[in-house]
Amino acid sequence: MTNKTALVISAHSADFVWRCGGAIALHEDKGYDVTVVCLSYGERGESAKLWKQEGMTLEKVKAGRQKEAENAAAALGVSDIQFFDLGDYPLQLDTDAKYKLVDVIRKVQPSFMLSHSQYDPYNTDHMYATQVALECRMIAQAWGHNPGEKVLGAPQLYLFEPHQTEQMGWKPDTFLDITSVWDKKRAAIECMQGQEHLWDYYTNVAENRANHFRRNSGGQAGGRPAKYAEGFQSIFPRTVDEL
Amino acid sequence: MTNKTALVISAHSADFVWRCGGAIALHEDKGYDVTVVCLSYGERGESAKLWKQEGMTLEKVKAGRQKEAENAAAALGVSDIQFFDLGDYPLQLDTDAKYKLVDVIRKVQPSFMLSHSQYDPYNTDHMYATQVALECRMIAQAWGHNPGEKVLGAPQLYLFEPHQTEQMGWKPDTFLDITSVWDKKRAAIECMQGQEHLWDYYTNVAENRANHFRRNSGGQAGGRPAKYAEGFQSIFPRTVDEL
Amino acid sequence: MTNKTALVISAHSADFVWRCGGAIALHEDKGYDVTVVCLSYGERGESAKLWKQEGMTLEKVKAGRQKEAENAAAALGVSDIQFFDLGDYPLQLDTDAKYKLVDVIRKVQPSFMLSHSQYDPYNTDHMYATQVALECRMIAQAWGHNPGEKVLGAPQLYLFEPHQTEQMGWKPDTFLDITSVWDKKRAAIECMQGQEHLWDYYTNVAENRANHFRRNSGGQAGGRPAKYAEGFQSIFPRTVDEL
Amino acid sequence: MTNKTALVISAHSADFVWRCGGAIALHEDKGYDVTVVCLSYGERGESAKLWKQEGMTLEKVKAGRQKEAENAAAALGVSDIQFFDLGDYPLQLDTDAKYKLVDVIRKVQPSFMLSHSQYDPYNTDHMYATQVALECRMIAQAWGHNPGEKVLGAPQLYLFEPHQTEQMGWKPDTFLDITSVWDKKRAAIECMQGQEHLWDYYTNVAENRANHFRRNSGGQAGGRPAKYAEGFQSIFPRTVDEL
Amino acid sequence: MTNKTALVISAHSADFVWRCGGAIALHEDKGYDVTVVCLSYGERGESAKLWKQEGMTLEKVKAGRQKEAENAAAALGVSDIQFFDLGDYPLQLDTDAKYKLVDVIRKVQPSFMLSHSQYDPYNTDHMYATQVALECRMIAQAWGHNPGEKVLGAPQLYLFEPHQTEQMGWKPDTFLDITSVWDKKRAAIECMQGQEHLWDYYTNVAENRANHFRRNSGGQAGGRPAKYAEGFQSIFPRTVDEL
Amino acid sequence: MTNKTALVISAHSADFVWRCGGAIALHEDKGYDVTVVCLSYGERGESAKLWKQEGMTLEKVKAGRQKEAENAAAALGVSDIQFFDLGDYPLQLDTDAKYKLVDVIRKVQPSFMLSHSQYDPYNTDHMYATQVALECRMIAQAWGHNPGEKVLGAPQLYLFEPHQTEQMGWKPDTFLDITSVWDKKRAAIECMQGQEHLWDYYTNVAENRANHFRRNSGGQAGGRPAKYAEGFQSIFPRTVDEL
Repeated sequence: MTNKTALVISAHSADFVWRCGGAIALHEDKGYDVTVVCLSYGERGESAKLWKQEGMTLEKVKAGRQKEAENAAAALGVSDIQFFDLGDYPLQLDTDAKYKLVDVIRKVQPSFMLSHSQYDPYNTDHMYATQVALECRMIAQAWGHNPGEKVLGAPQLYLFEPHQTEQMGWKPDTFLDITSVWDKKRAAIECMQGQEHLWDYYTNVAENRANHFRRNSGGQAGGRPAKYAEGFQSIFPRTVDEL
Repeated sequence: MTNKTALVISAHSADFVWRCGGAIALHEDKGYDVTVVCLSYGERGESAKLWKQEGMTLEKVKAGRQKEAENAAAALGVSDIQFFDLGDYPLQLDTDAKYKLVDVIRKVQPSFMLSHSQYDPYNTDHMYATQVALECRMIAQAWGHNPGEKVLGAPQLYLFEPHQTEQMGWKPDTFLDITSVWDKKRAAIECMQGQEHLWDYYTNVAENRANHFRRNSGGQAGGRPAKYAEGFQSIFPRTVDEL
Repeated sequence: MTNKTALVISAHSADFVWRCGGAIALHEDKGYDVTVVCLSYGERGESAKLWKQEGMTLEKVKAGRQKEAENAAAALGVSDIQFFDLGDYPLQLDTDAKYKLVDVIRKVQPSFMLSHSQYDPYNTDHMYATQVALECRMIAQAWGHNPGEKVLGAPQLYLFEPHQTEQMGWKPDTFLDITSVWDKKRAAIECMQGQEHLWDYYTNVAENRANHFRRNSGGQAGGRPAKYAEGFQSIFPRTVDEL
Repeated sequence: MTNKTALVISAHSADFVWRCGGAIALHEDKGYDVTVVCLSYGERGESAKLWKQEGMTLEKVKAGRQKEAENAAAALGVSDIQFFDLGDYPLQLDTDAKYKLVDVIRKVQPSFMLSHSQYDPYNTDHMYATQVALECRMIAQAWGHNPGEKVLGAPQLYLFEPHQTEQMGWKPDTFLDITSVWDKKRAAIECMQGQEHLWDYYTNVAENRANHFRRNSGGQAGGRPAKYAEGFQSIFPRTVDEL
Repeated sequence: MTNKTALVISAHSADFVWRCGGAIALHEDKGYDVTVVCLSYGERGESAKLWKQEGMTLEKVKAGRQKEAENAAAALGVSDIQFFDLGDYPLQLDTDAKYKLVDVIRKVQPSFMLSHSQYDPYNTDHMYATQVALECRMIAQAWGHNPGEKVLGAPQLYLFEPHQTEQMGWKPDTFLDITSVWDKKRAAIECMQGQEHLWDYYTNVAENRANHFRRNSGGQAGGRPAKYAEGFQSIFPRTVDEL
Repeated sequence: MTNKTALVISAHSADFVWRCGGAIALHEDKGYDVTVVCLSYGERGESAKLWKQEGMTLEKVKAGRQKEAENAAAALGVSDIQFFDLGDYPLQLDTDAKYKLVDVIRKVQPSFMLSHSQYDPYNTDHMYATQVALECRMIAQAWGHNPGEKVLGAPQLYLFEPHQTEQMGWKPDTFLDITSVWDKKRAAIECMQGQEHLWDYYTNVAENRANHFRRNSGGQAGGRPAKYAEGFQSIFPRTVDEL
């Protein structure tokens, strides 16, 4: 029998760690195969610490960022991590790059996908990645694209937590309890040597999202005792058999 | 062992039929006890056909409307239907009426609640009912309200489908397959003798929502074959253990 | 044969002049009977100039404001102006006052209604007036309210231009050419002796709205040469036989 | 004397049928010349049924889709239908393609234009088509684009009804009575052999939009007895001489 | 010479501590006189821990809550704290209570005001408090309200940070560096014995808002090194002499 | 010591005059060096009057528009004006053009930036310019873009006033008193010989924005007596030491 699967589309190579590392580790624990696609390394725009070092080059930055991301992926138990190396600040995908992403989507056949918020005035790569995720999801559903391949169903696209959520118009509708895998997420976070200033920031986020989890699962009258959580916004409606 | 429970707050006595009759019947089938509170009969504003009859009085209209609602409730298998008889067009709840609704909420301890859209320029009773539902949910959670009673947890409030959805800013995030109970919903609908012009309207709605159900569960590549569905908008985020 | 009719619901006694004086005069010219209801005189909150005079009393302010409004109404050719004298800052309508407004609505049977924007953080009376207008429109449609009276159809509710439009979230979807009646509107404006600082302001508004009228009717390639215009936002969709 | 004209910009070759077939037939009946531009055939993404046939090729799909669209256009009495064959899933227009569309716009000089909703996470071709429609409308208004040609005025852009309206943030502000041409629209719909599952869906839509037409034209107190209707959202404000 | 002043309107007696304790302490340090009005004690709805104690009464809860709030106010250096004791869950203000609040506003003549978010489906008291704050600000500006008193100018109304910001549609447009007074805020927080579960939550918030402060003041290229911050949303536009 | 600086990004060569001419002149007076980048001349789409002349060519239009813009810039005291000549209707920037803009941003190191509204269905060049402004701001912040150059901090991006503000969803949060430099702005406006129909329009705007300035700085109880003002919408939150 085939495992269930999930797909993360990360604009830069560290995004998947901060924003959905818990979801990845948790679903791997549940038997999912999670694939992570890093569209770029964030080599130009999200590697300030490296660029401040003497004699730094683009290739060195990319190599360093890839190593960090691989370490983090290993800490989370990621099944497959792919680096598309498409450049950042700005990130751009031509038709070939989009079709390459479609190939991954079709191969993975994810139960759900994860990507960035739909608006981000600080970082246009982020919103562009989600625009591309929606476009490629649509292409992957087309019976006339590479006829004969298995077409995609209708997986949910969850938007993971951006930095400065309110500025992005991001509103979580789903909180996931990641208490059981928190140690893995923290370990993955600590792989990000270049962004140590964010370690405690995202630990704070996880603790506070757990408060939201407790409140929304019952508060002081029956809430579930989550210690760490992540929030997600759904693009598409759910289909259910029970409310 | 106690059954699971749900609570419907209906501004007028027919709203629960058109808007969530399927959800009621389905959850009754699953063993839930569903309570319906009709805040008014819709006796002034939603009984045009009766008022066109010779010699009609307010009491006759209310009696007729109550009978229809009871018949519809029976067709759906409703566990309990209560008529608060608070008047309509406009509907108004004073503090006593609100506390009476809080009493019901606490007694039922619903897993989820159902009410109207948050905006309705055609029918201010509808949006007022939801405003009251949120206020009473809050009161029911207060440890200092009737201390000693069991306080309410954090049930979801689903907004059921209004008439002219787009004008109300209502956006469904959850589609429920009601195929298995469609006959009951149609039977309940046909109890509404005074509003026969809506029978086919809401049958069309159920058929088209099933199309949305199929699309969002996989479309032409694996969608579930629902024939009738209902849509709901959630006010609060969900708390989950798996995406 | 009966004339067509329109109804303006004005929170304070000067609002109808600045915000829809052109629409009133134009429709009177077209044979409409326009009724204006002033819910209050704006005696407490919009009469600063009067209150700065020695020995001023509430009754004197109200009398002065009524006189100004009557003069303005005469300048515009208003068919009927009614002063409900309900108090301002804050404006409040109890059930009796609402039913009195319903009586007017039913008597007038307006082809369309006019009132304030739905949001106004500077002036809560304004948004309250529109909330009441929607509620009373609904009551006037109820067959069970004063059975036997002619019930209301489904007149459009236009929201006239508030001060500081962008802060109110007001977006005009309809521009009306008031060039032919501009002299009447300016004359009505000049009846507002207590608010002379607004005369030129609303003249500027009328000139600039005419620019919008010209642009949206064809711009430099066929636009209509309006010199003065007013803007309105519609609450309800239109029903048409031609796009 | 020249006829009035209208222009439909359809992302895929079937969109114009479901979404504004009634408007097309009605305006043709009124003496308009309606031009339809199909930017693509929907050959890759909206032809699942054809692709499930043995030995299917892209050219065969396109030919079949063109034939269906021509038949539907004939049923509606379309004056002119043009196939730009730009590819779908994703649809893309380079500068030449945009200028070709501008040529059509200028030649037609439409009284109004019709295209898709501005947001569609399921189908990025749809929102892209509207983005292009706005861009090309702007270019067509430029006196410096092909100087000497007749520049475009300021036609309304109506957004026709998308599938799953609420998910698209589409809000109709105009309902059109299409009762008199319903037979033509249904005939056109039945030309779409590959999408039989949508025939009844869009018949339901037309019936329910007629309910909205009746409500908004007066409801139970004077509403017009439309049996079939279509809804549209306007991008630009109207300019009028009477409210 | 008179000090500058500010006014906090807090629905329940602890809200001012979590949400703007830093702003209070900081402005007191700058020489402002800050007045805090607690509309209720939160005695019914926000005192679960107390109600779980044996033999608790409403009066005891209110006394305990008042003591905590006074201690917190002292820790922050609040100039004046007033308890209106209007009841909570639900909070309600009649005309007299509103006029009492208007009296405070006029007496304080605040440079700016602080209150809750405009939407809060979890806690209708919060959004009601802001609705009242806007209404009373308007009344305080009326020359005809208690003629002879000094009328209010146009102070900003800042909305302080709600719990679960994204669910409230709250978007901060102003970040305030509270590093210099953090010890006072933490001390005030620790006065809230009944809500110890929130101490670390709001410490996390302050740390993460400082990250936002640093980012928005220059990020890794010149950002200011704030360690603790608070965020606020403005209702009204600013008037400035330099951008 | 170095002057403070600001940067205006104008889609067409006249936009900076109407929309922020006052802000430019005022900040030049305060010692800022203001740089204006005109991405295009508006030669195709905003030069109707020129194109109506006999024998007009694209080069002549561009030369004329450049001359007008230079004159206006001189009237405002602009420190530096640059013409990128990228074409208009539609405006398009390839990677090289974007990097050229990044070079300017980095060289100027602006305290704040100014550009168009984020939505404009009439003029897609306008919203595209702002999209590009955000993208280039991001690139200018990247340590890996032209390593060694001084990277950009986090300047505010103010959106200046579009034509038909409400249609663009533009909401000003900042009003700037430009009374002291009004003569310069009017002189600059009068340099725009081809758009004389807008001279009075934008004078009306400046007068009415001054009314908003007065209201928001205190109204009839202390407002500042501005005679001319401009409005701006901020994209990013402010970081402050005092509310």
